[in-house]
Amino acid sequence: LEAFRAVELIARKRDGGALGRAELAFLVEGYLHGGVAEGQMAAFLMAGVLRGFTHDEALALADILVDSGERLDLSRLPGPTVDKHSTGGVGDGTTLLVGPLLASAGAQLVKLSGRGLGHTGGTLDKLEAIPGFRTELDPDELLRIVGEVGCAVAAQSERLVPADRVLYALRDVTATVASPALIASSVMSKKLAAGAATIVLDVKAGDGAFMPTAEAARELAALCVEIGTGAGRRCVALVTAMEQPLGRGIGNGLEVAEAVQLLGAAPEASRLGALALELATEGLATATGEALDAARARLRDLWNSGRARERLARMVEAQGGDPRVCEDPAGVLPAAPVVRQVTAGGSGHVARLPARAVGEIAGRLGAGRQRKEDPVDPAVGLELAVEVGDTVDAGTVVATVHARSEQDADWAGDRLRDILVLSGEPVPRPPTILDRVGGAS
Amino acid sequence: LEAFRAVELIARKRDGGALGRAELAFLVEGYLHGGVAEGQMAAFLMAGVLRGFTHDEALALADILVDSGERLDLSRLPGPTVDKHSTGGVGDGTTLLVGPLLASAGAQLVKLSGRGLGHTGGTLDKLEAIPGFRTELDPDELLRIVGEVGCAVAAQSERLVPADRVLYALRDVTATVASPALIASSVMSKKLAAGAATIVLDVKAGDGAFMPTAEAARELAALCVEIGTGAGRRCVALVTAMEQPLGRGIGNGLEVAEAVQLLGAAPEASRLGALALELATEGLATATGEALDAARARLRDLWNSGRARERLARMVEAQGGDPRVCEDPAGVLPAAPVVRQVTAGGSGHVARLPARAVGEIAGRLGAGRQRKEDPVDPAVGLELAVEVGDTVDAGTVVATVHARSEQDADWAGDRLRDILVLSGEPVPRPPTILDRVGGAS
Repeated sequence: LEAFRAVELIARKRDGGALGRAELAFLVEGYLHGGVAEGQMAAFLMAGVLRGFTHDEALALADILVDSGERLDLSRLPGPTVDKHSTGGVGDGTTLLVGPLLASAGAQLVKLSGRGLGHTGGTLDKLEAIPGFRTELDPDELLRIVGEVGCAVAAQSERLVPADRVLYALRDVTATVASPALIASSVMSKKLAAGAATIVLDVKAGDGAFMPTAEAARELAALCVEIGTGAGRRCVALVTAMEQPLGRGIGNGLEVAEAVQLLGAAPEASRLGALALELATEGLATATGEALDAARARLRDLWNSGRARERLARMVEAQGGDPRVCEDPAGVLPAAPVVRQVTAGGSGHVARLPARAVGEIAGRLGAGRQRKEDPVDPAVGLELAVEVGDTVDAGTVVATVHARSEQDADWAGDRLRDILVLSGEPVPRPPTILDRVGGAS
Repeated sequence: LEAFRAVELIARKRDGGALGRAELAFLVEGYLHGGVAEGQMAAFLMAGVLRGFTHDEALALADILVDSGERLDLSRLPGPTVDKHSTGGVGDGTTLLVGPLLASAGAQLVKLSGRGLGHTGGTLDKLEAIPGFRTELDPDELLRIVGEVGCAVAAQSERLVPADRVLYALRDVTATVASPALIASSVMSKKLAAGAATIVLDVKAGDGAFMPTAEAARELAALCVEIGTGAGRRCVALVTAMEQPLGRGIGNGLEVAEAVQLLGAAPEASRLGALALELATEGLATATGEALDAARARLRDLWNSGRARERLARMVEAQGGDPRVCEDPAGVLPAAPVVRQVTAGGSGHVARLPARAVGEIAGRLGAGRQRKEDPVDPAVGLELAVEVGDTVDAGTVVATVHARSEQDADWAGDRLRDILVLSGEPVPRPPTILDRVGGAS
């Protein structure tokens, strides 16, 4: 009887119809606990990828995923709770900046993060480049640290949204990842289960992002905001460019060092700093009802006064890491045996520095992983010295490679020169923030 | 590595691309022997249902399915070998007529058949209504009987096209049956493995058929003929109407009795007889190169002379059944305890007698099965007394119900009156043969 019902539901989606919450729950829970076969769930997912899901289906799916596991209870935290999520990019160390910055303003950031895969980095890998840093925190320890410091970053708990993990593993091997509703419900289920009242999303668009175009990213952002708002949370999303890497450090320890360095400079002096300030501003204004300009000004002052960097040091110490990383990154973070500068092969204006290819170079140097179980090297990667719009001559240093061997460094330098596109004409600096959805008005 | 390759192939089909033979074989054989997961095959099948397959893919799939098992070797049979396949309908006893008729003309029909499911009947179930009739024949016995009699009907061997059985079982539970390429490759793989040089297809269209419209049936017929021809066989297909039941007996023993009765009358006196004569004519002309008119005239003579009926009796005897069924069906076939006439509720012209609903009535009386493992009752069913285009008055007998109980007979009579649509205007008799694909010119 159940198998028959599953076939009917799959057929309805195959024919372009929509399912109600109880019907979606029948499929997801049946797949999780038995009664719905792997093949049935995979056929349903493929039908959904090709036929699409309604917004109501996306909301219901997120709700069903949240219901499959435990939820974090943030009610005992003193300040407004904020969560921040990026859909993943290259050189995207915003969490290392946004968390301490919001904490310094009195908000509470409880961040459950993932690891890097393919060309994208992961926040857990970056923080674990700091000697001693622990990301495996149980809920009590996580909430205690947030209560004391205002922010903490922990590995996603196995007890939250188990259905999302099981479904994602199936989507990953059945070419059914690429559905806005499936992506949005997966992203938002984790945020909803993590409990924050305000959710700030950074949806990346472009070469190095999951969503290739700003329109696709905007659609995903709108759906995520709709799911969050529908579940009673305050939600805002920025759609941001991921054509070139966001930060200049690409590699785990190098991104920590860059974050520390940026927290000692003016936020708007770099694209990464400027975006981190905007994400924190959106989060704070949405959480408190404060005007955006006032929130931005307050956060800029906290950044410039060193309070945000101090907050980062306290978080590192609370999670077992060496807090001196915030004073002397080079003295604390592991160093690669080979460090070599790469110079431009000709002169011109930097027209493209494709994020995906840069991420893949860092990955092959050892900073990333192809499979979930691979280890990562905290020391290796790239420090870019130029970005799109810069002018270079033959001999200008365009990057520094941190490698495990001379051979790796040779390869990375050659490859970087290959992918760097120079133009004879001046190139305008592209915007970082492309669109904004939801949030404070 | 293999799992990765499967994902790439699924993604290509998802995006509307085509796969080569080696790529399709990788998926099908990987699913059969390990390396490709159930979810991967199901996602691929759903992508194919929604995106379609090319004709080359359909040909390759049939070839891959045939390659997965053994083939029958018909080379030692003396005459031209013919196979006949119907896509399934209600009251479709053509095999019981076509096989003996072709055998009486010197051709050899080796027929591997299936059982009924849902509202459609199966040839094995019908023949097994004859006491003693055995359908489980090993290849040697099957070929010996065909060599002696000219025709035999056996259950599909487990050793032929195992991949088709495994794939079909997955399609059945994942709502991925409805793809012309998947249906055609499945049908034709069984025909190709069964070895006949000539293949005659009866592709049904309409209410009681798998293909709802003549256009869809024609598309399927053309693809089947293309696959057969591509594999070096002679192939012809008729597209025929399945809006009302083809024969007047609906139920296993009742269909055997009707076949015997029809073989004692002129073939063109009934729709079932006329279609059987045409299918045999197409098969004989395609197999021998004879002109259609000459083949038809020869077969009509064999029918009218009683040679075809004699051949049916020899086949029944060779397969262990009581050959007296061909002289006195009522004396040999099991009888239902309740036999009752159903009369029309009003007067008018028969406009519709929907095949699916009629098949479902017979099924609920016990003639059919909902699940593969259900038993069937050989005695029960319906004998229709009218067809579309006939004129009836209140009190005209429209059918005789053969039931296991008075209660069943009441229900069936009421239900039959419900589904019988009468019109105030005269209704033309609809054609049986709608189209023809391939074959002798």
